[in-house]
Amino acid sequence: MKKLLYTLFFIGAVLAFSRANGEVTLKRDRLESPAQGRPETRSQDSLKIKWWNPSQHSSPVIEGQAWPGEVAGFYDRLPARAQKTVREAVWDLSRESAGLLIRFRSDAPEIQVRYTVEDALDMPHMPSTGVSGLDLYSPNEDGQWEWTAGKYSFKDTITYHFQSLPHGNKREYHLYLPLYNKVKWLEIGVSGNAALEPLPPRKEKPIAIYGTSIAQGGCASRPGLAWTSILGRKLNRPVINLAFSGNGRLETALVDLLVELDPALFVIDCLPNMSGFPDDTIKTRLTNTISTLLKKRPGIPVLVTEHADADINSLNTLREGGFDRVNKLAREALTLLKTKGLQPVHLLSAEEIALGIESTVDGVHPNDIGMMEYAQAYEKAIRDILHEKDR
Amino acid sequence: MKKLLYTLFFIGAVLAFSRANGEVTLKRDRLESPAQGRPETRSQDSLKIKWWNPSQHSSPVIEGQAWPGEVAGFYDRLPARAQKTVREAVWDLSRESAGLLIRFRSDAPEIQVRYTVEDALDMPHMPSTGVSGLDLYSPNEDGQWEWTAGKYSFKDTITYHFQSLPHGNKREYHLYLPLYNKVKWLEIGVSGNAALEPLPPRKEKPIAIYGTSIAQGGCASRPGLAWTSILGRKLNRPVINLAFSGNGRLETALVDLLVELDPALFVIDCLPNMSGFPDDTIKTRLTNTISTLLKKRPGIPVLVTEHADADINSLNTLREGGFDRVNKLAREALTLLKTKGLQPVHLLSAEEIALGIESTVDGVHPNDIGMMEYAQAYEKAIRDILHEKDR
Repeated sequence: MKKLLYTLFFIGAVLAFSRANGEVTLKRDRLESPAQGRPETRSQDSLKIKWWNPSQHSSPVIEGQAWPGEVAGFYDRLPARAQKTVREAVWDLSRESAGLLIRFRSDAPEIQVRYTVEDALDMPHMPSTGVSGLDLYSPNEDGQWEWTAGKYSFKDTITYHFQSLPHGNKREYHLYLPLYNKVKWLEIGVSGNAALEPLPPRKEKPIAIYGTSIAQGGCASRPGLAWTSILGRKLNRPVINLAFSGNGRLETALVDLLVELDPALFVIDCLPNMSGFPDDTIKTRLTNTISTLLKKRPGIPVLVTEHADADINSLNTLREGGFDRVNKLAREALTLLKTKGLQPVHLLSAEEIALGIESTVDGVHPNDIGMMEYAQAYEKAIRDILHEKDR
Repeated sequence: MKKLLYTLFFIGAVLAFSRANGEVTLKRDRLESPAQGRPETRSQDSLKIKWWNPSQHSSPVIEGQAWPGEVAGFYDRLPARAQKTVREAVWDLSRESAGLLIRFRSDAPEIQVRYTVEDALDMPHMPSTGVSGLDLYSPNEDGQWEWTAGKYSFKDTITYHFQSLPHGNKREYHLYLPLYNKVKWLEIGVSGNAALEPLPPRKEKPIAIYGTSIAQGGCASRPGLAWTSILGRKLNRPVINLAFSGNGRLETALVDLLVELDPALFVIDCLPNMSGFPDDTIKTRLTNTISTLLKKRPGIPVLVTEHADADINSLNTLREGGFDRVNKLAREALTLLKTKGLQPVHLLSAEEIALGIESTVDGVHPNDIGMMEYAQAYEKAIRDILHEKDR
């Protein structure tokens, strides 16, 4: 008997140790996923997974997509016809799923997602979880956002496995798609007896954003932490992310698409991609963009965002000047528009965004700290403009 | 004449466009580095680079290294003799340069660093810039920290190029080394006529930290954003990072090394790696660790940190319990120690660290938001314990 007890104790100790080994760790031999704490029980039911492919659904299920009925690829951000009007670089980037999310209801204790993407999984300053990963949020009964990490595996087919979800009642889930990659194919799975009910895009008027890599989501560590995603949760409103890395250049072809929308507000956050242009070009393009929006979409406010922020490169004597120049030109253009009586145009200043030296990964692209600072500044400005109270 | 003007205008427009193309962008064809704003002038002098290899310096130049004269590898964190006493995993991780920094003075307008590393450049949830990158900070005349991004290239030899630095006067620089990789060889270069004066490690008593992947720096987007790095800047004090991913397990072999140090404070932040162990093991190891430190290093305060924070996985019904259990056991162990009259032991609670659902990349490892929250909580706790005023 004593021997049996010792044996059991030994087995227990080994199990405990291997569990310990599976705790908070980051080593490369465990690349697939960080540990999920204690081993989680899995019922037989969970092995029978019922898979759902959103692209085969009869009605639109992608939120943040402005032209759901007109896309060439199911996860595209521009309508198919735009391929003829926008530059090739813009078209290519518009096929990355930045800002898109899938809403559904489920009572499943486990949710799995499997998908494939077209391009490289990561960048030197942005991890796979941000470039090509997923993010799952859910509002609780009090309207507060809840979140959980999924166990991921970045192989030819990427998988995310969300476990130990609060089940029993059907919850609303928001699944954010990759910020810097093109989804080729995707399926969401729940255990066989659980519900998976797709939800249509919300009817509230969205915030429509035309921007650069920063607005596309570079360099958030996961899709839910792009400032456009954070803003959408804070305002509890759909967001249309029309941001194109390096290519938010205030171009007519894009503005002509923007005016087809009927948002609560337009955000023009392109200045970081304008600093290589001559003064005149910057002012002309900004003025034309705003004038067109105000004329073709009268009454919809426009918010122009400065390039934030020179001080993040406090040691780089040349960089500061580049940031300041585009902001000065934008202010001049806006002043001119106001004297012409064109309203309503608003400015979100670099000072309001208030990035610090710890807010970027590379002196330009916000890390998660900078993304949160951007989102907070936007939330405040947009609530003011739309006369919406703080939650 | 008119034709010449048109030609010049056309050339100017093309140049402007190609510069625009080089602005804020994140595309994969520009993987090496984000743009640095306007093209920066480079004098002939900068082409003649004077390279310095810290490993060939006659006296210690690595800060954050507790046993500078006793290391097997120049960028190791444990003394060579530890290879015989610590587990293989701990030894291997101790060769990663987490928390190490090189201090020097320079009046150079440009600083370059080239180096090679042993392991994979990144992880799925932590980019190359954090796993294998560098970070350059400099205190200004008012003692405020300044920072700038370097243009990087992650190839067989990794290079960082810091440009347009404020030159003329010699400034103090702190160069942070990779958080999750082993530096094999490294050289720092300045233009031929600029000064590069190595500085010895500071004499102030350090904060000595024994911890897990979280304290090693996972998943900061760059080395200066690990919480131990932020804390060092906030307190203006050296920090000894003895954190080993997945292997901060309160082991005697490590504690025997810790007691060789003479820090201002010991931090024990191992609980996230203990949750797989049985209750008794957790309490015994924690009690033994603290008792040994207090007995062998009387008068040096010990700060024990809880696993922060259960709520970040608000949707995962099982995970919360795992976090809470180790914290409860730690509180019991500390209470018992206090009744025995062992002093001074302090606790940094999960509530004080106050991570939220946006503070981690994977439900366990802090992103830059979480790193800042950890650093702020530590700063407050340590200033209280050491009776140091806020800056």
